[in-house]
Amino acid sequence: MRTRFTDMMNITYPIVQGAMAWVSDAQLASAVSEAGGLGIIASGGRTAQWFREEIRLAREKTDKPFGVNLVLQDPDWQDKFQVILEEKPICVSVGAGNPLPLIEPLHEIGTKIFPVVPNIRLAKRVESAGADAIIIEGMEAGGHVGNISTMALMTQILPEISVPSIIAGGIADGRGLAAALLMGACGIQMGTRFYASQESSAHINAKMAIVNATDTDSVTTGRRGSLVRSLRNELTECYHKMEDEGRPREELSQLVRGTARKAPIEGDADWGIVQAGQSLSVIRELLPVATIIEQMMKEAREATELLQSYFVE
Amino acid sequence: MRTRFTDMMNITYPIVQGAMAWVSDAQLASAVSEAGGLGIIASGGRTAQWFREEIRLAREKTDKPFGVNLVLQDPDWQDKFQVILEEKPICVSVGAGNPLPLIEPLHEIGTKIFPVVPNIRLAKRVESAGADAIIIEGMEAGGHVGNISTMALMTQILPEISVPSIIAGGIADGRGLAAALLMGACGIQMGTRFYASQESSAHINAKMAIVNATDTDSVTTGRRGSLVRSLRNELTECYHKMEDEGRPREELSQLVRGTARKAPIEGDADWGIVQAGQSLSVIRELLPVATIIEQMMKEAREATELLQSYFVE
Repeated sequence: MRTRFTDMMNITYPIVQGAMAWVSDAQLASAVSEAGGLGIIASGGRTAQWFREEIRLAREKTDKPFGVNLVLQDPDWQDKFQVILEEKPICVSVGAGNPLPLIEPLHEIGTKIFPVVPNIRLAKRVESAGADAIIIEGMEAGGHVGNISTMALMTQILPEISVPSIIAGGIADGRGLAAALLMGACGIQMGTRFYASQESSAHINAKMAIVNATDTDSVTTGRRGSLVRSLRNELTECYHKMEDEGRPREELSQLVRGTARKAPIEGDADWGIVQAGQSLSVIRELLPVATIIEQMMKEAREATELLQSYFVE
Repeated sequence: MRTRFTDMMNITYPIVQGAMAWVSDAQLASAVSEAGGLGIIASGGRTAQWFREEIRLAREKTDKPFGVNLVLQDPDWQDKFQVILEEKPICVSVGAGNPLPLIEPLHEIGTKIFPVVPNIRLAKRVESAGADAIIIEGMEAGGHVGNISTMALMTQILPEISVPSIIAGGIADGRGLAAALLMGACGIQMGTRFYASQESSAHINAKMAIVNATDTDSVTTGRRGSLVRSLRNELTECYHKMEDEGRPREELSQLVRGTARKAPIEGDADWGIVQAGQSLSVIRELLPVATIIEQMMKEAREATELLQSYFVE
């Protein structure tokens, strides 16, 4: 399968692995890249030192292209940006902040930048500022999300931009990939599906919580405008109960503080946050990354043939 | 274009017009059916007498198939159900309540029933109870909505059911139609796009508010679990301000009470609720229904050809 994005990145399939805090490490990223997709190492929450070591480790594990992710809300994001300037990864996806000042320094070291955008206005702004591709993320994605859905964003942003675009949020199989390409995207990003893959080094409790979850098990916590999507569990139920009781914001923030690493690292899927998107029921077992991607390409092909069959001359 | 739904309903295009309170009347429904889609008359909020007259008026305006909608939260929904039993429309879409008890009486008069479902569990339940088709509605739709997006619902529900399914929520052009068919649906439902059509008898102020809106202008009000999606305006800003101030639910409910008819009927798009979905920017002018549908079929064909071009042997 060839798109402008696979050509630009020299990868086999237009499938990007989502940058998941405490989950997307060298092991997962290299597995996705080895399988023909684009792996991403997530620096969010980690130390700059860990970040540098994972980039080097991934280079040992694969000769294929992989990228990294920078979260501009991270207190030490600038240390991690320094690591990027020194390690010179092929590409960087950037979320949760203003990516414009990073474009020029990254281009100077030959690194491509893919800002994550939640609406038309920001998509146009980063495109005109020189972003190499944009990641359009819908509210059904796991982790920090906006309010607009993948279908609404694909419908409205794709006709407005010419830079290659990657669709994220709610896509978990080859039908979703084919739908995104059909709408005008050049590829998709998947997080949750890879979170629950064999190569994911996330704790088995968190991975199995995803395998056992269904469509109604994904909820959001946080204030309007800074929502985090995760699996419904003891923590989120407690959060929503306190919210309904009108408890002050500070108490709510206190409740979730530091819970991002608790599930994927410590294995507490009840009181830790399992950041996962809304497309859960199709994730039925912990498959190898290569198997997930192979199945997706088969599903995309079958879906395309099905669509063709509906047209009558 | 032929799908199991177009065959079942004997219509030309797999496009259903959404049931919009105070907007979907005989004029709009007959225009959509005349153009080859499936028009729907919405009874929500109206009187049983108005409902009966509109069904009869639509029959004068078109010989093509059209349907009606029943809202089971309507205080007088049973009077309207009585009208349906007497007028025997071809099909009824049913939302906001338990449709199971209606299936047998409707089948006895030869009327098909299409329950609106927001998750896998309810989709399977209405299918096994004998629903003729299901309408899968994502959170990006206008009006009363759930929490799960169209992409997540298509990904998870479509592989689980065999009854014909219609996708609603965030679809406003032919690319969205093609994407839904590709995912396994038999058609789509569009509301907002037809709200802002030439034949829509909604007030010009409400129609132009939709034409002038963009992706970030669609918001929800209401408690978690009973959300209503509409355009951001004076009313919704006031609602969210009061919500942030922690004002009691009763005050919030009081603020929105009776505002559903205010925009489409009285033309107050500032303090009335303009129930619209998230896909707004592609609605650029008030086009005739037939033109909207013709454009969609052209867009669907082009999108399908684009998708085919990505596959390399």
